Amino acid sequence: MSVTAAQGFAAAGVAVGLKSTGKPDVALVVNRGPRKVGAAVFTSNRAKANPIIWSQQVVADGVIEAVVLNSGGANCFTGSFGFQTTHQTAEKAAELLGVSAGDVVVCSTGLIGTGDEVFRAKVLAGVEQGVAALSDDGGEAASLAIMTTDSRPKRSVRTHDGWTIGGMAKGAGMLAPGLATMLVVITTDAELTSAEADAALRRATGTSFDRLDSDGCMSTNDQVTLLANGATGIHPDLDVFAAVLADLCQDLARQLQGDAEGASHDITIRVVSAESETDAVEVGRSVARNNLFKAAIFGNDPNWGRVLAAIGTTAAAFDPYDVDVWMNGVRVCSQGGPDRPREEVDLAPRATDLLIDLKVGTAEATILTNDLTHDYVHENSAYAS
Amino acid sequence: MSVTAAQGFAAAGVAVGLKSTGKPDVALVVNRGPRKVGAAVFTSNRAKANPIIWSQQVVADGVIEAVVLNSGGANCFTGSFGFQTTHQTAEKAAELLGVSAGDVVVCSTGLIGTGDEVFRAKVLAGVEQGVAALSDDGGEAASLAIMTTDSRPKRSVRTHDGWTIGGMAKGAGMLAPGLATMLVVITTDAELTSAEADAALRRATGTSFDRLDSDGCMSTNDQVTLLANGATGIHPDLDVFAAVLADLCQDLARQLQGDAEGASHDITIRVVSAESETDAVEVGRSVARNNLFKAAIFGNDPNWGRVLAAIGTTAAAFDPYDVDVWMNGVRVCSQGGPDRPREEVDLAPRATDLLIDLKVGTAEATILTNDLTHDYVHENSAYAS
Repeated sequence: MSVTAAQGFAAAGVAVGLKSTGKPDVALVVNRGPRKVGAAVFTSNRAKANPIIWSQQVVADGVIEAVVLNSGGANCFTGSFGFQTTHQTAEKAAELLGVSAGDVVVCSTGLIGTGDEVFRAKVLAGVEQGVAALSDDGGEAASLAIMTTDSRPKRSVRTHDGWTIGGMAKGAGMLAPGLATMLVVITTDAELTSAEADAALRRATGTSFDRLDSDGCMSTNDQVTLLANGATGIHPDLDVFAAVLADLCQDLARQLQGDAEGASHDITIRVVSAESETDAVEVGRSVARNNLFKAAIFGNDPNWGRVLAAIGTTAAAFDPYDVDVWMNGVRVCSQGGPDRPREEVDLAPRATDLLIDLKVGTAEATILTNDLTHDYVHENSAYAS
Repeated sequence: MSVTAAQGFAAAGVAVGLKSTGKPDVALVVNRGPRKVGAAVFTSNRAKANPIIWSQQVVADGVIEAVVLNSGGANCFTGSFGFQTTHQTAEKAAELLGVSAGDVVVCSTGLIGTGDEVFRAKVLAGVEQGVAALSDDGGEAASLAIMTTDSRPKRSVRTHDGWTIGGMAKGAGMLAPGLATMLVVITTDAELTSAEADAALRRATGTSFDRLDSDGCMSTNDQVTLLANGATGIHPDLDVFAAVLADLCQDLARQLQGDAEGASHDITIRVVSAESETDAVEVGRSVARNNLFKAAIFGNDPNWGRVLAAIGTTAAAFDPYDVDVWMNGVRVCSQGGPDRPREEVDLAPRATDLLIDLKVGTAEATILTNDLTHDYVHENSAYAS
């Protein structure tokens, strides 16, 4: 059900030919109210796509009526024509839904530089068809329409104390912090103010999507949007809501990781006994971005030397000669030297656990990444053609 | 001739079984004087191999008598036993050469974690055989003995105003700034003080090896050593010497780039009209480390969107919507929008030029990198096994 699991939301997914495969490529999510609270977090990339520039303005007042999403073109670096396309997309949806264009978020994903007249015409047609197809159980169709190189849709639902949160995500490459190449829409029928929705969303994404670093490449189009309509009339305990939202975001992040382009291992990097959480994140990220380590995991090679070479480039507090490294439960390195034989490590399973014990403090963080594979190179060398 | 092109140097390369192939694996370079000036720059990785820790002490007084280098084992994270191995290596060479162990630099390259009793015995045997094999034309043999996954040796010689600089380098993977996975020895018969040699070496490496960023992975064992014996009695103009040394270093850096593991393109990233050289370097590096861009070049795809997505992650001064991007002479993006059709860009040649015009100032920098290929993944997934 994803975005239509919570009460008072409608969604649709339609096909208008943006994808050469003919699969669904335009999605709508509409908030039926009573409240129209919205919050969003955006890519921190300075190279921002037109939909990001537009949507940042929309969300500024904490009100969102609807979200229009398209795959099959990022509408990024497409000039003023491209920005007008985004604007017209919001206006078209607003007109058909009887709301203000300034309350319609737009999200696009696909190839950068794609956004010509043909693209515009198809997106506008998609809005028209999407509004006509809106349904209280349209969440599944919407989750299919936002897929690009995803092999499967990503959906998650949590229910707690009478209220529900549901979400959908797409993203398979260019997965990196701040955020990933991903579009996420989350809806809830809990009652929240705009400030509460914003705070909960930032807390939840900060430890989920922001810690998914599949390939170190940050997107121009990332956006995570939360819509809250208070349809249940229940005002949740905010800590509980934030925790449930974080759990749902982590579930979606794991689904993104599990479907990352070409990956053959889902690597969970847990850094413990750090002086600070910031240090733990920096150490984890340095490993998540080390191509040699990632290629070794692809080759089922527990090459802990590459872990130490990676973390040695950080400014985090630790002594490289006091660090322990565990792979899939086997301590392969203790105090910066060889420990158990590499043969004891079984890297055949897709799920791979790397534990780095810095031995200086009590903070920790977990970063999710993938291995570097032939298929990753293949898919990303052939994407545009 | 490499390190024996300048007067007053002897070198050797011998095989002692560190490499399973039976190829040469221990090299010696000895300064016959009259002066024994030495300078070196080291990896900035905090995870430092034993030979780095040792050699940093050796070079502190500006005097180097000899350099011992081995391939087939990095002697990194091998505990106190490993450090003793390095120490014994220097002592053995010193004893046979009649010099102080505190003036013998040791360099190792190979798999991290390799440095057991067998390794030690072979390296010590290599020192003994190497001293016996020292020759005034041993530069070629030495350059072969330091190769690991290199497909060919890297050598360069420059002569100017009566003095000569000669060098050898090895390195094919883990190539990244500060420095690359590389060992370099450079000799000159010009007359320099230790301070002059150090200053010239830092200037030369700062714009050559430090700007080679093949795969973003920083090594634990990198070292560039310069030996100067003043055998010609000529004290060079220091600016001229530094320029010639920089030219030689750049030649060796290009050779490393051209032989990088699995690479099919040598990419020269030139960033112009930056506000500062620091900005230009940051922008160039962000592209050099972007796996999606590098995979696109492997696929002969002039995907300029990935260039903008990469540089948007930097803090450099520029407007993403005012940037021009040229590939192999074709302006594919102007002012942050599509320009010439991608079909006009011919990416078939190995040499690939990327020009990024930031349009804010007058500074510029050039970063060298490679593409991300199936072969890179293959070689680095199978290295340890």
